[in-house]
Amino acid sequence: MAHNGAQALIRTLVASGVDVCFANPGTSAMHFVAALDDVAEMRGVLTLFEGVASGAADGYARLAGRPAATLVHLGPGLGNAVANLHNARRARSPVVNVVGDHATTHRFDVFLASDIPAMARAVSGWVHTCDHPARVGADAAAAVAAALGPPGQVATLILPADVSWGGPAEPATASVAPKAGRVVEAERVEAAVEALRSGEPAALLVGGTVTADVTALRDGARICATTGARFLAETFPARLERGAGIPAPERLGYLGEFVVAQLAGIRHLVLVDTHRPVSFFAYPDRPSVLVPDGCEVHVLAVPGDDAPGALAALADALGAAPTPVPAPGASRPARPVGALTGETVAAALGALLPEGAVVIDEAATQGLWAPGATVGAPPHTWCSITGGAIGYGIPAALGAAIGAPGRPVVNLEADGSACYTIQGLWSQAREGLDVTTVILNNRSYAILNMELDRVGAGAGGPAARRMLDLSDPDLSFTRIAEGFGVPATVATDAEGFTTALERALAEPGPHLVEAVLAAG
Amino acid sequence: MAHNGAQALIRTLVASGVDVCFANPGTSAMHFVAALDDVAEMRGVLTLFEGVASGAADGYARLAGRPAATLVHLGPGLGNAVANLHNARRARSPVVNVVGDHATTHRFDVFLASDIPAMARAVSGWVHTCDHPARVGADAAAAVAAALGPPGQVATLILPADVSWGGPAEPATASVAPKAGRVVEAERVEAAVEALRSGEPAALLVGGTVTADVTALRDGARICATTGARFLAETFPARLERGAGIPAPERLGYLGEFVVAQLAGIRHLVLVDTHRPVSFFAYPDRPSVLVPDGCEVHVLAVPGDDAPGALAALADALGAAPTPVPAPGASRPARPVGALTGETVAAALGALLPEGAVVIDEAATQGLWAPGATVGAPPHTWCSITGGAIGYGIPAALGAAIGAPGRPVVNLEADGSACYTIQGLWSQAREGLDVTTVILNNRSYAILNMELDRVGAGAGGPAARRMLDLSDPDLSFTRIAEGFGVPATVATDAEGFTTALERALAEPGPHLVEAVLAAG
Repeated sequence: MAHNGAQALIRTLVASGVDVCFANPGTSAMHFVAALDDVAEMRGVLTLFEGVASGAADGYARLAGRPAATLVHLGPGLGNAVANLHNARRARSPVVNVVGDHATTHRFDVFLASDIPAMARAVSGWVHTCDHPARVGADAAAAVAAALGPPGQVATLILPADVSWGGPAEPATASVAPKAGRVVEAERVEAAVEALRSGEPAALLVGGTVTADVTALRDGARICATTGARFLAETFPARLERGAGIPAPERLGYLGEFVVAQLAGIRHLVLVDTHRPVSFFAYPDRPSVLVPDGCEVHVLAVPGDDAPGALAALADALGAAPTPVPAPGASRPARPVGALTGETVAAALGALLPEGAVVIDEAATQGLWAPGATVGAPPHTWCSITGGAIGYGIPAALGAAIGAPGRPVVNLEADGSACYTIQGLWSQAREGLDVTTVILNNRSYAILNMELDRVGAGAGGPAARRMLDLSDPDLSFTRIAEGFGVPATVATDAEGFTTALERALAEPGPHLVEAVLAAG
Repeated sequence: MAHNGAQALIRTLVASGVDVCFANPGTSAMHFVAALDDVAEMRGVLTLFEGVASGAADGYARLAGRPAATLVHLGPGLGNAVANLHNARRARSPVVNVVGDHATTHRFDVFLASDIPAMARAVSGWVHTCDHPARVGADAAAAVAAALGPPGQVATLILPADVSWGGPAEPATASVAPKAGRVVEAERVEAAVEALRSGEPAALLVGGTVTADVTALRDGARICATTGARFLAETFPARLERGAGIPAPERLGYLGEFVVAQLAGIRHLVLVDTHRPVSFFAYPDRPSVLVPDGCEVHVLAVPGDDAPGALAALADALGAAPTPVPAPGASRPARPVGALTGETVAAALGALLPEGAVVIDEAATQGLWAPGATVGAPPHTWCSITGGAIGYGIPAALGAAIGAPGRPVVNLEADGSACYTIQGLWSQAREGLDVTTVILNNRSYAILNMELDRVGAGAGGPAARRMLDLSDPDLSFTRIAEGFGVPATVATDAEGFTTALERALAEPGPHLVEAVLAAG
């Protein structure tokens, strides 16, 4: 049977393991939508905003380890997807980002036309416009291969409407399989051995594919146990396996001065699938590069390398004993009582977090206590806001729940961040996903109140403070969630929060618990 | 007193009449925020999402006729603003789009860094990075001048954090004033005279600055009355003055086949501050360019020209009588009864629309009847979704209410479109604005159900139809609005809707009326 371009595209994607599409379609994508009935293996997930689709693809990729497709409409749709594509780019999440475009015969600079490739390049490692139905199959396969890397990246395939509806088109003849990372040269392993055996203070800083891999974390911990090196992880790992029994590298802090303290005295820093420590923002009279003076940086593995393999080789070269591997034991905090604060929310989470849970962390300032309170919880996965673009949490939770079927998802979400992509709750309800959203509602952009002072702008006058305040009017996330079809509860003390969280975790389907935090 | 860069920027803007800033700030913009206390003339309006800020700036400019500033944070913040900047670009709304960037000393390709200029160019007529505090004043003045045009455009000024906090900086020494449009050459007026006097069927197609200007509309109507030419307006005017006593050009339809019917037989088409008719999208086997075969196109004025002046000159050259000017008389439909449909919603609006109201129209399919039902209402302003990027209505209503103080704003909003930038409701509540949002809730992307068939994809199977359906779960815009601090009412019949609309219009402050439409 002859296919049109859209059918050939979807068949090619499915043959290569891309069988979920987070979509916010428009007229440019109608044949793609119609083709969902021809290729039943592709699961279409409707979102109410393109930023939900792109964030979901990021969350999906972090858990499933393979790309989902997105489907967005023209330049403005791509624009709406940009922030979460940025996060995906920084997380090295593979994403096949399909942008429906005007027909090739309809290139007039009016109405919805804009420069799609220029915008796409800002967030994509690969951008291509498919210009003929006969090339859809090959181009789709190339997009999947580009997305997979390694390292993973956003591959944007621009699909003009007439390429979608035109034909005959053929799916690609061969499916695309993930490729292994590049094997690290022996010289780099040897250099790391030398650094770690120098007798000078050293640290192993891991990220990327290492934090996502329990075996690699164990190898890192063994290396550090053998050499006395500090075991560190990047600030916002895309995926961190953790919990009782899993070695826990110390994560670098968000604030530069914390990182400076963490790295003080280190003379050798071995980087494994991460970049050298740099502060998130610049501040007057503070350093941006956080590597201590006199500290030598050694790159064991860069993104795209087989970093777990390099760590295993390094552990072997060092003769690191296979056991014991230092790791946190099983322990949970007591159920909290009293005032509801970031700290008691964290305690409740530590008391209740189910085994195998996925935590999507966009809690900002009030989430400071959550990692510590859960380090001894049963094994779970922690996903951070790797690219720093807020509005990632609710969409990523949607995608993670689809990418990790059967695993409960807990989204720790700051009030300000929640408002960026709040319509993602509806897709969680539509898909019946087991996502518990915890809103940490402190009625302010608290992080910016802190930053205002840190950048040297002082405490701010009334006009400035009003720009960082979310209390006039107060937001009711409970009502908003109900409006989007997600059952919700509000809690104002620790006992009430713990009970609500327990119920939300126990019941199937999505829930939202709004934690109205005590004034700090 | 010495200023820092942020203070000099804001003083320069205020001196040139840019005294409203729609902001969603981040760390990069903390000194801008702090400076709001130093320059009391600048009104900062906090939004919960950058797309609200950019859409508000568009709505503000359409009503105030001068730019507002936006304040967004880094590339992802700009990405979130892109869709509504695209609408502003197509509406030729002047906007000074300030993007806070990392400090010039902090250019590392990690975390939030991305290619801001590349993204900005896709939606801006002018893009500039200010690289030193000493140049902030001049660069801000250049941004205002670029935004003002004519024609108006988005001017993006990228402001690194250290330029913002650095100094000494001086405001620009001279304020920037709007410039008049270019005077149209006499030859073009003469060519239009010849075309309209040819004796062949002719039409005058107006847009841009003409539809925003009652005098220009009257001149257009006089020209058509004298020559027998058809009086037409572009499909989605950025600003259309209308109502009883104001000449009403016939707007071109959204669907190409309607436009083809409207233009059938026309041999001379005179364009005044608009482009030649092109269909919104391409469809298989339908034309994209909608100018009839054998029709000659004459350009009287392009964007940036003094189009109202050109029309006045044309009317003079034709010896058009000053009166009578054909215009709709005062008439309102009766208050509707019975089922709640797009048609009865329109009737209620026609029955109740206050004099001087601003209608922000993002009603999509269910808004078809609203222009007809209000043509005899007291004079009012109608703003369309000029760029076609949905999510424009709620933000534009916010901006319009600030740009036109004392005028009631009615936002006709489709359910699907409302979900893109729903958090804009909160800023309406925070600013206490007299905005009435009418949600036309038909529980579907109805326009896409139509487009699915029109592009030749048929009616769609169950998987396709589910991607266009908003009923599982049903959205409650009433609850969502209440969650964002806006009082809301749901209506399910025409009488209830009319009563709710009447009350919302009578009470100060924002309201939302959710019209749950009868199944079609």
